[in-house]
Amino acid sequence: MGNSLHKSNTAHGGRVHEAARCWNVSPEEVIDFSANINPLGPPPGVLRALENCLAPSNLRTYPDPFAFIAALGKKHGVATNEIVVGPGSAALIFAVLRALLPASVFVMIPGFDDYFRASAAVGAEVLRTRLTETNCFAPDFAGLARVIEARQCDMVILNSPHNPTGLLYAKADLQMLVAMAEARGVTVLLDEAFIDYVPESSLLPVAATKSRLIVLRSLTKFYSIPGLRIGYAVCAAELAAAIRDQLDSWPVSTIALEAGQAALAEREYESESRCINAQAREEFAAGLREIGLTVFPSAANFLLVKLPVGSGGELAGYLELSQILIRRCDSFCGLGDDFIRLAVRSRADNLRLVSLVETWFRRSE
Amino acid sequence: MGNSLHKSNTAHGGRVHEAARCWNVSPEEVIDFSANINPLGPPPGVLRALENCLAPSNLRTYPDPFAFIAALGKKHGVATNEIVVGPGSAALIFAVLRALLPASVFVMIPGFDDYFRASAAVGAEVLRTRLTETNCFAPDFAGLARVIEARQCDMVILNSPHNPTGLLYAKADLQMLVAMAEARGVTVLLDEAFIDYVPESSLLPVAATKSRLIVLRSLTKFYSIPGLRIGYAVCAAELAAAIRDQLDSWPVSTIALEAGQAALAEREYESESRCINAQAREEFAAGLREIGLTVFPSAANFLLVKLPVGSGGELAGYLELSQILIRRCDSFCGLGDDFIRLAVRSRADNLRLVSLVETWFRRSE
Repeated sequence: MGNSLHKSNTAHGGRVHEAARCWNVSPEEVIDFSANINPLGPPPGVLRALENCLAPSNLRTYPDPFAFIAALGKKHGVATNEIVVGPGSAALIFAVLRALLPASVFVMIPGFDDYFRASAAVGAEVLRTRLTETNCFAPDFAGLARVIEARQCDMVILNSPHNPTGLLYAKADLQMLVAMAEARGVTVLLDEAFIDYVPESSLLPVAATKSRLIVLRSLTKFYSIPGLRIGYAVCAAELAAAIRDQLDSWPVSTIALEAGQAALAEREYESESRCINAQAREEFAAGLREIGLTVFPSAANFLLVKLPVGSGGELAGYLELSQILIRRCDSFCGLGDDFIRLAVRSRADNLRLVSLVETWFRRSE
Repeated sequence: MGNSLHKSNTAHGGRVHEAARCWNVSPEEVIDFSANINPLGPPPGVLRALENCLAPSNLRTYPDPFAFIAALGKKHGVATNEIVVGPGSAALIFAVLRALLPASVFVMIPGFDDYFRASAAVGAEVLRTRLTETNCFAPDFAGLARVIEARQCDMVILNSPHNPTGLLYAKADLQMLVAMAEARGVTVLLDEAFIDYVPESSLLPVAATKSRLIVLRSLTKFYSIPGLRIGYAVCAAELAAAIRDQLDSWPVSTIALEAGQAALAEREYESESRCINAQAREEFAAGLREIGLTVFPSAANFLLVKLPVGSGGELAGYLELSQILIRRCDSFCGLGDDFIRLAVRSRADNLRLVSLVETWFRRSE
């Protein structure tokens, strides 16, 4: 373990394979708190579907999204031409920006790095509003409404629950913004990558009834399949066609489509995941607060944490000794290295982390 | 079998799942001559690798292309920063166009549809030169050299062996164009999707030594894994970085990366595929010529065929009765419905098709 991963830094968590190489261990030995993946692992039906779909006859043909899109349409009650399937929601963010080519995009910081990368890829000006810890990183919806009312941007990117803060936005606030954006010709890209933990808060059911609301969904985090690359967008048919034009002809693999379709049928796994996550998250947060850390309220499967002393870099270095990865936040514009983001894992893993953080914290005091 | 697929039309072959739905049969029962996939099926090492990589621990982590890129670098003798891995070469065509934003692109017609789609996606003007059957669709390299010399375009897209004609371009001709393009500041995007059948003709070994040559490679066709979505580009490191910026953060799935890496080790499969394809292709071509059809010379695993009477639509309708898919060519700008493209399949499949085409042909005369 001569090398240290925490000294390098990138814009994303989940660098499990890189850590394994760096620490000279197998990827299975890395305990990853840096990516927000459901600790239950892929649902059993997904694993069964994957085994079946590895038949050579499946690999030898080009992917066909027909059945998956039909299943999505049925699940969400939307028409199949109001759905765009892509290789992960990150890829769809790029496709949306390319389809609409906004001159200016309004984004909250801290926020998911690919909003900035995709805006840069199309040369859009990025207008930022800074979320601050004084009010638990709640957005200033009234201020944002004024920006939309004055049409000071072509597109607003919203993310609820928000990454990396975990904060869920009230549905009424989002509805107010969407209505105003609709009236002023501003597009709203609503990233619901973590909404599966609070599905009742989703705006997906109304997306296709608006002309300028695009709702993005990920299958990666909730169904624990980030290795497969699949996500989707729901919006008005005309917008959907324009987004699809920005994807190549076979954007999603057969295997990801089969896994995705199987995932949609996993109702029991879904409710179990929600229940387990909510319990584990609150216990995890309580444990961290107990040792003196500030933990921000989260509706997702991760926690934003502020260290009262020391830095995320030091803590990450200490946890590396136990083959544990955490998400430092110094690469998030609007946060600093005194913040860390922790995925909610199993009870045992979470308690172990609390204990290690406590040891480190007492040492640093 | 109430529905007929041949009446609808799209820009791509390989619509096996759509045909299966349309004909109410299983995808395995469709005999697909419309997509140019190696009939040997995925190499055994690839199938083994896929079985191993379906472990939940693999699915639960984000993909990491490190090992695959290292293997590619070793295979081709290029540095890892001169390689861009993407979800299929079609996706990389889009990424290249987006990275370079050419105002004008020179493309040969007939040609692969995604050259046109990707050019349209970035608003590039498409300059076309028409390949004609009078000289077996050989390009006018002298004319193209004059276009480059006069810098009448920002980018030239070349495809050798060319799809849909099958024609291999002489290496000396390509080298001359590349040298001239380099001198005049014109980018050459060389699509080598079918070069694995004639690897000695590849320009990949020199790609990274030029400042404006991008060589695209597919793993889909030769290794029979179009369902997985993986391909790569080789070019100068600076260009590679710009192309990478146009991809999202995890563009290729873990499963595709594992399959790709296993494929690179399959030397025996590679030589066997070349040998079997060359024999089967020439026998197939001879059989089709014998019944009076014009078959153009091909170095790839498909044949462009001209029907002396009738249309591709009629023939496709007739072959549907035997659950056979062929690639009609009316959607190729520069060809018409009297052309068809046929993948080289197993000897038995090819002979059966020749026999069916002969029956249809005699009836139509």
